[in-house]
Amino acid sequence: MTSRASAVLELTRELIRRASVTPEDAGCLDLIEHRLRAVGMRVERRRVGEVDNLFARHGESGPHLMLLGHTDVVPPGPLEEWTSPPFEPTERNGCLFGRGAADMKSSVAAFVVALEHYLHEQPDHSGIVSLLLTSDEEGPAEHGVRVMVPWLQDQGLLPDACLIGEPSSLETLGDNVRIGRRGSIQAILSVRGRQGHTAYADPADNPAHRAGPLLAALGQLDFEDGDAHFPPTRLQISNVQAGTGAENVTPGELKVLFNLRNNPNSPADVLEARLRALIEANDPGPWTLDWRVSGVPFGPATGRLPAVVDAVCRSQLGRAPVQDTGGGTSDGRFLGPLGIPCVELGPVNRTIHRIDECIGLDELERLPGLYHGIIAGYLSGSEEG
Amino acid sequence: MTSRASAVLELTRELIRRASVTPEDAGCLDLIEHRLRAVGMRVERRRVGEVDNLFARHGESGPHLMLLGHTDVVPPGPLEEWTSPPFEPTERNGCLFGRGAADMKSSVAAFVVALEHYLHEQPDHSGIVSLLLTSDEEGPAEHGVRVMVPWLQDQGLLPDACLIGEPSSLETLGDNVRIGRRGSIQAILSVRGRQGHTAYADPADNPAHRAGPLLAALGQLDFEDGDAHFPPTRLQISNVQAGTGAENVTPGELKVLFNLRNNPNSPADVLEARLRALIEANDPGPWTLDWRVSGVPFGPATGRLPAVVDAVCRSQLGRAPVQDTGGGTSDGRFLGPLGIPCVELGPVNRTIHRIDECIGLDELERLPGLYHGIIAGYLSGSEEG
Ligand SMILES: [Zn+2]
Ligand SMILES: [Zn+2]
Repeated sequence: MTSRASAVLELTRELIRRASVTPEDAGCLDLIEHRLRAVGMRVERRRVGEVDNLFARHGESGPHLMLLGHTDVVPPGPLEEWTSPPFEPTERNGCLFGRGAADMKSSVAAFVVALEHYLHEQPDHSGIVSLLLTSDEEGPAEHGVRVMVPWLQDQGLLPDACLIGEPSSLETLGDNVRIGRRGSIQAILSVRGRQGHTAYADPADNPAHRAGPLLAALGQLDFEDGDAHFPPTRLQISNVQAGTGAENVTPGELKVLFNLRNNPNSPADVLEARLRALIEANDPGPWTLDWRVSGVPFGPATGRLPAVVDAVCRSQLGRAPVQDTGGGTSDGRFLGPLGIPCVELGPVNRTIHRIDECIGLDELERLPGLYHGIIAGYLSGSEEG
Repeated sequence: MTSRASAVLELTRELIRRASVTPEDAGCLDLIEHRLRAVGMRVERRRVGEVDNLFARHGESGPHLMLLGHTDVVPPGPLEEWTSPPFEPTERNGCLFGRGAADMKSSVAAFVVALEHYLHEQPDHSGIVSLLLTSDEEGPAEHGVRVMVPWLQDQGLLPDACLIGEPSSLETLGDNVRIGRRGSIQAILSVRGRQGHTAYADPADNPAHRAGPLLAALGQLDFEDGDAHFPPTRLQISNVQAGTGAENVTPGELKVLFNLRNNPNSPADVLEARLRALIEANDPGPWTLDWRVSGVPFGPATGRLPAVVDAVCRSQLGRAPVQDTGGGTSDGRFLGPLGIPCVELGPVNRTIHRIDECIGLDELERLPGLYHGIIAGYLSGSEEG
């Protein structure tokens, strides 16, 4: 086989050349399917709506480690702002440039190269290793991992742990991994009053007056529920709106939109009860609360996977990664809440979703080795691959 | 001379026929000028911009009573909704219908008829009686009484008291007079913070959080400054705005628009100082306050005029009017703040600015007698005309 370093560079370049803006796959999964079949993996493709998904696995029983990634990329933005065209992989200054170079065609390529090398060396490994790829992570994420997870569940193929290739690193490869996420709740509080003329209306009918103490209480809410892995739950008011715009008309309604980022110590239903009690206690008049859980908190990942990741990083990079629970959403949200430990480890995320997205060539070279080590360590039952 | 009752009906009809939608005078003032000259009044016309104004006076020295009115009317609205055409005076069910029938061509006609009768009877009266009419009360009011007042002041012709013919009555003619007005202040409070992402931003940078206690304090402000004539000063929040509309972006600024209706016991500068201190005390972070006085409070009217109005109403209508300080703005705002007592007495205001505006024929008949009595009472030094 070719060296992992040259193989991953070549495959990343080939993937970048395929302009797979969500939900377009542009042939990425065909290329990957072909290579994984060549090393003996069973590959299934599922097209859902406009979205292509791929599930490949090897091994029959025992601990199941799933690698999770996506081949879709965000749109490139104004082409003229790119130093080199976004879908022409270009090396300069020690980096590989192109849309998806960091998020996350390099990780996907590294997964493939790591699997090729691992299965070449260990065709009779214990346990199961699988790869789930979608072309709908950056978009609405309705027809990707969201639907693949129940499909796997129906077949008894949910993994015991999941390694996600999202770009988790901050400054140098492996300095940071993600082991969970806060949840997100969007709430709309409406307080109703009676519209009137500023000269004649009763101030007691004015919802902007009635809701004042409540608004003050909302902004001062403190959730002392942080722990070693999660910051405290936080509430942020995103929008306040009352009034018609006219100077002499009192508002008939005041709306407050707020967002809660909750850690697993404060589940959504506990928070909702607390918020409803706070509203009642501040008695703003007739009110409604629209409460929408858009993400469930999960983590921190426990068990073998985070230990293996830690050990492999120490061994290959010389230091253990910081474990955090920050960052935006990822497809981990469809697995983590099921109790499956998820660890995200991938390139430096400084340039993702930007003009001139890139990955350092040194990062790219090291990535297949890291993944190879984690697969081997997890499946062998030892901590180092 | 013809009877006051038939004269006022005929003149009101003639004025309604002239479609004098602001600033158009449509010949109203020409008609009036002609009649007032015929009874020996000195009449001056001043055209300012598109606006026609008329000042007529009689008498050389002594107490000066000014009658104040406007010949312009608000637009009729959808013609098809009127039972009879708005500019065709029509009698039915004991009422005269037409745009301006109540606001305030009937009062203007009654002023003219009262002056005609009074000057016919008392050509050598003591004191000065004058009539100021504009065709810009219902519109921007920039080129009407606002500019006529300094013009009168330059000539030493400001009155000692002012009787305004605006429709002040609520249910029956003379049940209510207006003897002053609260002022109006429009304020815009801006509290600045730092825009951010709901997941990462510091809640302490969120102006909707920082301004919460201040908003609560604003809505609960109490001004215990009411008296026998004025209700307490009141603050009403008209608009609250923060946020971009996006769910996951914290606001960079929160804006609160509020209106104060202040009585003369709380001048605007005292209120401004109190509001600024309240804002400081609630420490919302960087803030600005845009403070715009759009009306100065005036009244209550004191001295002879309100006493004469009271006595004339008792004598002619059988009861004294309630004195109040409510209602919308009128041209009194250009005279009252100069310390000139202003009393507003005119028709029932239920239909003003509406489809099928009208005045009761019984009201219309009584109106010249009331004005005649007030002129005579004021100028004679007794309280009854
Ligand atoms: Zn990604
Ligand atoms: Zn009027």
